[in-house]
Amino acid sequence: MSTSPAPVSVIGLGNLGRALAEAFLRAGHPTTVWNRSAAKAQPLVANGATLAATSAEAVAAGELVVVALLDPSAAREVLTGAPEAVRGRALVNVTSGGPQDARELADWAAGHGAQYLHGAVYAVPQTIGTAASSVNYSGSRAAHQRWQDQLALLGRHTFLGTDAGQASGYDVAVLAGMYGMLGGFLHATAMARTAGIGAAEFTPMLVSWLTDSFPALETFAEEVDGADYGATESSLAMNQAGLATIIRASREQGVTVPTLAPLKELIDAQVAAGHGAASLSRTVESFTDPS
Amino acid sequence: MSTSPAPVSVIGLGNLGRALAEAFLRAGHPTTVWNRSAAKAQPLVANGATLAATSAEAVAAGELVVVALLDPSAAREVLTGAPEAVRGRALVNVTSGGPQDARELADWAAGHGAQYLHGAVYAVPQTIGTAASSVNYSGSRAAHQRWQDQLALLGRHTFLGTDAGQASGYDVAVLAGMYGMLGGFLHATAMARTAGIGAAEFTPMLVSWLTDSFPALETFAEEVDGADYGATESSLAMNQAGLATIIRASREQGVTVPTLAPLKELIDAQVAAGHGAASLSRTVESFTDPS
Repeated sequence: MSTSPAPVSVIGLGNLGRALAEAFLRAGHPTTVWNRSAAKAQPLVANGATLAATSAEAVAAGELVVVALLDPSAAREVLTGAPEAVRGRALVNVTSGGPQDARELADWAAGHGAQYLHGAVYAVPQTIGTAASSVNYSGSRAAHQRWQDQLALLGRHTFLGTDAGQASGYDVAVLAGMYGMLGGFLHATAMARTAGIGAAEFTPMLVSWLTDSFPALETFAEEVDGADYGATESSLAMNQAGLATIIRASREQGVTVPTLAPLKELIDAQVAAGHGAASLSRTVESFTDPS
Repeated sequence: MSTSPAPVSVIGLGNLGRALAEAFLRAGHPTTVWNRSAAKAQPLVANGATLAATSAEAVAAGELVVVALLDPSAAREVLTGAPEAVRGRALVNVTSGGPQDARELADWAAGHGAQYLHGAVYAVPQTIGTAASSVNYSGSRAAHQRWQDQLALLGRHTFLGTDAGQASGYDVAVLAGMYGMLGGFLHATAMARTAGIGAAEFTPMLVSWLTDSFPALETFAEEVDGADYGATESSLAMNQAGLATIIRASREQGVTVPTLAPLKELIDAQVAAGHGAASLSRTVESFTDPS
């Protein structure tokens, strides 16, 4: 026999929160929603959701409370602003943030009788709530087990461990890598345009080359793990020369180099320290030892 | 009936030059080689290549002269240092450089009775001289047609047009994008390490997420071509908040942000100019209009 679906709340109705609230409604859960600007809640209310007057009321209304806000300070404000309401709740926070944010909220929740599970969502807006998106969770194992059917509405999900900061640790690292690629795309597209090449014509060539470069990243990763930068096909000196050419060509085309110039400075410092024959991957050391 | 293979020269014996010289030797071409440090020529000489005493001698020895040096100034030095020897030769320069470098050498070659073809090689060292590598050429159409069988030894080849700078224009733009991704990889790997995640464990996750982000690049490219940044799922304000989180988390983990901080400054300026609701892709404008 089936039990009635548990009451749930969704706080924050951006792309992610909206998609999740809709999925909860479809699955028959009594669903309470809250958003700073209430207008975003109207389509959900039309589909049966309850609009809470305050975020604390929304926290109190759900056994499962999903927080999907824009930044970690907003998530902290909403949760710590409802210290009585959180008791006995499972708090699932899928707001992007750093590992430290998640650990602090997990400690706070434990001190107020709530379970805390942090989720890092890997989805573009088009794939939220589909099998093409995935979420890494860490924190309360009990909450992950109890609510796994509901969490499945957000996409494939993996439990990484009981350190609430772990999912965010992966997340911010992956996003740092993605923003590097986005910065490269923006620079590259500016160069293509000044060379008379349309962005839509150029981008597939760039994507193809980035894809071809992925195996090199895996080689670099092995070098980094072994701290063994000696046997390389991609030396710091070679990359120094390559970057110098790209930077010069950019400037000749009237394109600025805000992200590549600092990268070259790191490589220059490695070469100046006598590592010109070592692998480009050695530059990873410069990010944690800026001396 | 077959004609005897034409004499060819390869100047510069890095990964690319060596692979090409080996392919020429296998195809039966009388092959002359030159490299600044002669030691790299020895395995080729053992296979039948002739080592020239000077780069000018190497230029003079080939009907087809391939120049594969480390940087454009070295290529310029070798070619313009042999003004008599180049007459009647097809000069194929596959040295990485900017469009302006290629155009200047093409003009110089035309003034000295030589054909000039510039090649931009898309290959990692492991794929040089295989079907997995490709070369875009621009410049002398006659040279590309006359020597296409020999050029095929370097990989798939495409003739883009008679502007000698065009192949390099694509090339430097693609490489700028690749270095953006590499900078992101280095930063991301530093963050993963400080979070206790091995680089080899982390990199496949990063690669998977970068791959999932490629369709977003194609959307951004359409926005850029239309200069229409309004209908977006990835607003500047949202990315500003995301980057702020990543930068703060990086610093909390002891990781510096040499490439992401300048990217965030560009986004900050776009938001400050009133474009917070516009697409992240609008930042491409900041690379050519730094005001």
